[in-house]
Amino acid sequence: MRYLIINGPNLNLLGRREPGIYGNSSFDEVLADVRSRHSDVTIDYYQSNHEGDIIDTLHANGFEGCDGIVINAGAYTHTSVAIADAIRAIRVPVVEVHISNVHTREEFRRHSFLSEACTGIIIGFGTNVYNLGIQALKDLKR
Amino acid sequence: MRYLIINGPNLNLLGRREPGIYGNSSFDEVLADVRSRHSDVTIDYYQSNHEGDIIDTLHANGFEGCDGIVINAGAYTHTSVAIADAIRAIRVPVVEVHISNVHTREEFRRHSFLSEACTGIIIGFGTNVYNLGIQALKDLKR
Amino acid sequence: MRYLIINGPNLNLLGRREPGIYGNSSFDEVLADVRSRHSDVTIDYYQSNHEGDIIDTLHANGFEGCDGIVINAGAYTHTSVAIADAIRAIRVPVVEVHISNVHTREEFRRHSFLSEACTGIIIGFGTNVYNLGIQALKDLKR
Amino acid sequence: MRYLIINGPNLNLLGRREPGIYGNSSFDEVLADVRSRHSDVTIDYYQSNHEGDIIDTLHANGFEGCDGIVINAGAYTHTSVAIADAIRAIRVPVVEVHISNVHTREEFRRHSFLSEACTGIIIGFGTNVYNLGIQALKDLKR
Amino acid sequence: MRYLIINGPNLNLLGRREPGIYGNSSFDEVLADVRSRHSDVTIDYYQSNHEGDIIDTLHANGFEGCDGIVINAGAYTHTSVAIADAIRAIRVPVVEVHISNVHTREEFRRHSFLSEACTGIIIGFGTNVYNLGIQALKDLKR
Amino acid sequence: MRYLIINGPNLNLLGRREPGIYGNSSFDEVLADVRSRHSDVTIDYYQSNHEGDIIDTLHANGFEGCDGIVINAGAYTHTSVAIADAIRAIRVPVVEVHISNVHTREEFRRHSFLSEACTGIIIGFGTNVYNLGIQALKDLKR
Amino acid sequence: MRYLIINGPNLNLLGRREPGIYGNSSFDEVLADVRSRHSDVTIDYYQSNHEGDIIDTLHANGFEGCDGIVINAGAYTHTSVAIADAIRAIRVPVVEVHISNVHTREEFRRHSFLSEACTGIIIGFGTNVYNLGIQALKDLKR
Amino acid sequence: MRYLIINGPNLNLLGRREPGIYGNSSFDEVLADVRSRHSDVTIDYYQSNHEGDIIDTLHANGFEGCDGIVINAGAYTHTSVAIADAIRAIRVPVVEVHISNVHTREEFRRHSFLSEACTGIIIGFGTNVYNLGIQALKDLKR
Amino acid sequence: MRYLIINGPNLNLLGRREPGIYGNSSFDEVLADVRSRHSDVTIDYYQSNHEGDIIDTLHANGFEGCDGIVINAGAYTHTSVAIADAIRAIRVPVVEVHISNVHTREEFRRHSFLSEACTGIIIGFGTNVYNLGIQALKDLKR
Amino acid sequence: MRYLIINGPNLNLLGRREPGIYGNSSFDEVLADVRSRHSDVTIDYYQSNHEGDIIDTLHANGFEGCDGIVINAGAYTHTSVAIADAIRAIRVPVVEVHISNVHTREEFRRHSFLSEACTGIIIGFGTNVYNLGIQALKDLKR
Amino acid sequence: MRYLIINGPNLNLLGRREPGIYGNSSFDEVLADVRSRHSDVTIDYYQSNHEGDIIDTLHANGFEGCDGIVINAGAYTHTSVAIADAIRAIRVPVVEVHISNVHTREEFRRHSFLSEACTGIIIGFGTNVYNLGIQALKDLKR
Amino acid sequence: MRYLIINGPNLNLLGRREPGIYGNSSFDEVLADVRSRHSDVTIDYYQSNHEGDIIDTLHANGFEGCDGIVINAGAYTHTSVAIADAIRAIRVPVVEVHISNVHTREEFRRHSFLSEACTGIIIGFGTNVYNLGIQALKDLKR
Repeated sequence: MRYLIINGPNLNLLGRREPGIYGNSSFDEVLADVRSRHSDVTIDYYQSNHEGDIIDTLHANGFEGCDGIVINAGAYTHTSVAIADAIRAIRVPVVEVHISNVHTREEFRRHSFLSEACTGIIIGFGTNVYNLGIQALKDLKR
Repeated sequence: MRYLIINGPNLNLLGRREPGIYGNSSFDEVLADVRSRHSDVTIDYYQSNHEGDIIDTLHANGFEGCDGIVINAGAYTHTSVAIADAIRAIRVPVVEVHISNVHTREEFRRHSFLSEACTGIIIGFGTNVYNLGIQALKDLKR
Repeated sequence: MRYLIINGPNLNLLGRREPGIYGNSSFDEVLADVRSRHSDVTIDYYQSNHEGDIIDTLHANGFEGCDGIVINAGAYTHTSVAIADAIRAIRVPVVEVHISNVHTREEFRRHSFLSEACTGIIIGFGTNVYNLGIQALKDLKR
Repeated sequence: MRYLIINGPNLNLLGRREPGIYGNSSFDEVLADVRSRHSDVTIDYYQSNHEGDIIDTLHANGFEGCDGIVINAGAYTHTSVAIADAIRAIRVPVVEVHISNVHTREEFRRHSFLSEACTGIIIGFGTNVYNLGIQALKDLKR
Repeated sequence: MRYLIINGPNLNLLGRREPGIYGNSSFDEVLADVRSRHSDVTIDYYQSNHEGDIIDTLHANGFEGCDGIVINAGAYTHTSVAIADAIRAIRVPVVEVHISNVHTREEFRRHSFLSEACTGIIIGFGTNVYNLGIQALKDLKR
Repeated sequence: MRYLIINGPNLNLLGRREPGIYGNSSFDEVLADVRSRHSDVTIDYYQSNHEGDIIDTLHANGFEGCDGIVINAGAYTHTSVAIADAIRAIRVPVVEVHISNVHTREEFRRHSFLSEACTGIIIGFGTNVYNLGIQALKDLKR
Repeated sequence: MRYLIINGPNLNLLGRREPGIYGNSSFDEVLADVRSRHSDVTIDYYQSNHEGDIIDTLHANGFEGCDGIVINAGAYTHTSVAIADAIRAIRVPVVEVHISNVHTREEFRRHSFLSEACTGIIIGFGTNVYNLGIQALKDLKR
Repeated sequence: MRYLIINGPNLNLLGRREPGIYGNSSFDEVLADVRSRHSDVTIDYYQSNHEGDIIDTLHANGFEGCDGIVINAGAYTHTSVAIADAIRAIRVPVVEVHISNVHTREEFRRHSFLSEACTGIIIGFGTNVYNLGIQALKDLKR
Repeated sequence: MRYLIINGPNLNLLGRREPGIYGNSSFDEVLADVRSRHSDVTIDYYQSNHEGDIIDTLHANGFEGCDGIVINAGAYTHTSVAIADAIRAIRVPVVEVHISNVHTREEFRRHSFLSEACTGIIIGFGTNVYNLGIQALKDLKR
Repeated sequence: MRYLIINGPNLNLLGRREPGIYGNSSFDEVLADVRSRHSDVTIDYYQSNHEGDIIDTLHANGFEGCDGIVINAGAYTHTSVAIADAIRAIRVPVVEVHISNVHTREEFRRHSFLSEACTGIIIGFGTNVYNLGIQALKDLKR
Repeated sequence: MRYLIINGPNLNLLGRREPGIYGNSSFDEVLADVRSRHSDVTIDYYQSNHEGDIIDTLHANGFEGCDGIVINAGAYTHTSVAIADAIRAIRVPVVEVHISNVHTREEFRRHSFLSEACTGIIIGFGTNVYNLGIQALKDLKR
Repeated sequence: MRYLIINGPNLNLLGRREPGIYGNSSFDEVLADVRSRHSDVTIDYYQSNHEGDIIDTLHANGFEGCDGIVINAGAYTHTSVAIADAIRAIRVPVVEVHISNVHTREEFRRHSFLSEACTGIIIGFGTNVYNLGIQALKDLKR
């Protein structure tokens, strides 16, 4: 079993960026934790600040050789119909996650174009959302 | 450790009600599964169709003797400021869950008064959201 | 054949409350008239000011032993997704009625959460809407 | 006693048009049924696809020689202030009816310019709404 | 010099219709008064409840043989882009008039599709608006 | 008989300001024309760029010694509830006028707080609206 | 003279709940203060988290044996048409109060369904609003 | 093969009306060009300023003896649910066309009630849209 | 102790203006009553129809020599960000009052720019709101 | 003569993606068909999932060496002001096309930022829109 | 060369008012700094809390003897069409400035009626916006 | 001291693109002017049509080695939450500039996602906004 985590724009700055909202851990530490908690499966990781790269990556992994995708599309969550369409177009299940509780922030962060295209959504548990996202994907097989 | 699951209106009909949306399992079966997967903790359950009863139950469990609450407030999610205020008023963490992906249904189901008062939100993985909700609460202790 | 009429909040005050809008008859008189005009069937009656009680009553009568429900949900018409979901969840046909023409009153009374869950809607003929509602339910059997 | 049924645009196609929504009966069959159920009164019928013709007909019948009008204005329900004004201008009671439950269809069908000008509204019981409309008008005389 | 007054839907009922709003005079009396006050010019009159007829009449008089048009489009004021386009398409000046002060009535009467296509607008002086409209047209020649 | 014309902000610049919209005549010329056309009555004139001064002037003239007021409140038309309330508070009839056709300009110029407080409204005939406004006031006496 | 204070959902937690917003006093202390300042009248108290109970209590006290009601409906202020209708239906004057200044909080707290049904509204003076509410009711007798 | 072109209100003025927007050719010239470019099929033409006539014509041609309809409903595009319903009701494919690019004009011209009922839409190529519409209909047969 | 009452536009007409809404007492009588009920403190009074004067007065009294201000800003309540900013800028507490229940009147009267800048708000008890406002200010010292 | 077809995000999946909406043909087959039907001209093709690449391509082809562009910007249609601005900035005519009838899908697909920048728009004829788009561009030369 | 700085309501309190937002310097200090940095030109200053005074000042300086105006209209920015119209009416260039970044404050501060009438806008650099505004005006002469 | 100017999509066409709006100078000329006026500091320049590239560039320059950034994000101003989030995430001050006065153009150009994340905003002085932006950044050091 192989899963893919995709992080969108500005998430490469995790640990450096607004730590009051996003925490102090870099994503390397988060990823190590996720892999150790889900050591029975392969977990790959991709990050890009480019909307087009995220679409290309969804296409490349969305038809075969991957059992599910956890995506934190960052700000593209609120503006990208194109990523939502890519999720609709592929076949593997996709879980939308957000580190912070987007509902306690600016009004425009309450709307996600992705949610209606994804299997499920996990919001607000800090970086633990990646762990829960992988768990949710694995449970789909039960 | 003791956790509480609260189900709101019409969820007593689970298994009988619109199975295309909510599945065929009654909540008894769901609860048994949650308890077997989280056998290290106590999981209590409460269901009511009455907004006031849900508030009373949040008050009774929200200050001590409980380590967290998973709530599926059903339709009250979209209309109850009072339940949201009860969540704000208490001290234990509360996780909002929804069985179906509310973003693929009627427009009015996309807005939740509860989300901004909860620690986190888990949506759309069928009845597995209760398992993930308990998991998320336990992980808050890490 | 057995039908149920459900009245929602403040309708227990019928005859005492704003007679310019709701008329001078108490609901006892209205019910006697409905029963005399539909003497071939059993007509039961339930009133509550509690949203949860109305949901419980819909559940208790919505699967068997009842051939249809006429509901005047009063103010809950405009605010209760939970009652609408209860109507969606049950199996017997439900007719929404309103004594006054809600379209000639405050703007917020023009929207009903129940209408899209009901079989049909009858509005504005004074207390005669209960008679017409029972008639409509009986005609569904033709 | 004489009553008039007015049908608006596209209702001449009843039985041919979108039978999933409007049923398989032509209006001839519907009218025969209405007349047989209300054989104690005269029931006249008028249909037009022209907004102006409907207004002219309301004027011609709205002051005398007619005891009430049942109108299904079809699509003009949602766009015609002029027909609504004609109903306001005349003296006989007018009942608005719709065959389908307009609240389960496109958003724009939920608003009626006519409702606030009519005595009452009956929606969603298939072609039986014409029967119920005549009944409601007759009951106004009680 | 020749001017045309066009009245739209329901204005044939003037004097019979909602006298509290529209006054007790029939339009015959109004027209006689207008002609006597503007006896130096020819004033023709046309009324129809049909949107298409009003457009045809605007076309027939809008290019030559007429020095200006006073139009009270009644309810079509608020719904007819087609009449507004006809006014835009023709060459003679058109004055929009309303007998009642539309701003003191229903919200939907505050918007006119015609206003931006007309030379000017006169509202709320009772049937004297026709006199003022003719006066305004004559003054355009000064 | 005595009438008052009130001009609001920036109308002191008439003839200097955006002549494409407001024309080349100063208001002195306009006033002379109005007085010559209505030489049987006294016409006083007041202009201010101050909202409070306009209210004071309405109070001072609105109860006695004046038979009607023509007001072009300029930009305050769209923002001043206070002037509208002053018009509601006084007893003499008030006519709202606008030189340009406000409906062909910015969206915010289409809404007037004054219209619902005034007897009538005259829009878009250039500076002739003052003549027509006085005429309309005089005709109220007929 | 007898007055009734009704508190809605979550106000039983006063003193425990978000003290930055609602203060540190329990309602027992507040009530003692109100009674000592208004020792010439009887002041009864009722609290419930149930919308239906509040309606029942309004009905029970709204026709006789009570000279006025002070209600802090808490979150139901923003969502309950049913409580507003109960206030409309009864005969004794009702004063709406809020401890915090609702206009400085979330947008949804700025709208009250109750305000248009109440005699008056008092907002934002902390728990002193109950004192002022009783005073306002007593002054109605002057 | 037989196709029908329907033109709505004001399009009879083509060549006379706002040539900056609609061009200088009369529709006779346009129709001659369309027929010469599609000389292998019969192309009939109908124009009316009456909404009802357009509906009648759609009904008369929409079930047999016609292989497709090109409609430029003019201003009715933006206001007529009734024409849209007629298109939904008939069986032949209908193509919506507009001579000018409606998206560069008034905001209200951006919304079409017809679009969701038509097979396809062609906008903005001047009178060449009629040629392209016929071509699109013929290609449906490929 | 010294308090200031500020009245905004048109309130100089109290007793003359729309007595059905604002009552028959002039403000002189109201002020005498307020002073007699609060004879232990000095109560000054200022009225202006000028937004700028009200701001100047708030500045002059808002930093020292005054223990609180009761303001009825009349129509400026709904339109003046500048007065609201003045209230924010000064140091003494300000209470917003309204004689009539603004929530039962035009929609635009339901929004106040001042409320979020004031300590508290008192609405709808007739001219008694001035008494209650002074009482509320005095109680702030307790 | 040389034309360019540009496809935006996810259109590389044509034939694999949601065939119920987009059909079973890959774009290779579509392109072959377009070229065979327009064998007198050169037709180049470019696809990218990257908004920036599409802008670069429009710049590179928009000033010379190209006689027109057919663009299906996919999801960027609804979100990209930048592509719309690129179309405005270049000199060759651009035709917007959509395979499916976007007006029958989600509400957000009804708005296109591109339409007001393009010469014309062709929607809903399946992959034939590319043929019609090239035809429309060629006809611009007539 | 002579420039004028105009400050609107509450800006006379600079240094005393909400220093967290507006800083601790009085405008005297700011003005001294601006004059020292732009010692080659004359810089005059005017402040008023009166909308009408600001309009009068714009008129008096807007046609001659002044080379440009820097205006911080304070709260009138968001409510005054009259000041915006005065800017449109005069001939000298006007620069709109704001001390704080209005986009990080209340929603209603994001809209300016003045912006579309001004040459340019400078926001958020503290009191340095006055320096930058004068600089921008001087650069217009280059 | 080193500053960076970032230009977004289509700004590479400056001088070729819509000169009526954007002027005739290429950005090379603009940059030379900016550097000559600010010869005491280093000014680097970056342009891209790719949203992701702009984010990458902000990251690369936003933490050290740069004293401030002037960004004209072009069309991404109105659609990119991701660039706004990048600005929030970095540490150097960022100034938003626009060449044209965006408030005089399409409605959608009035909203900027970037403004609330930037230190300040400068709009509408033609290409001089780059000079003023650098000046504003330098003044932050004073």
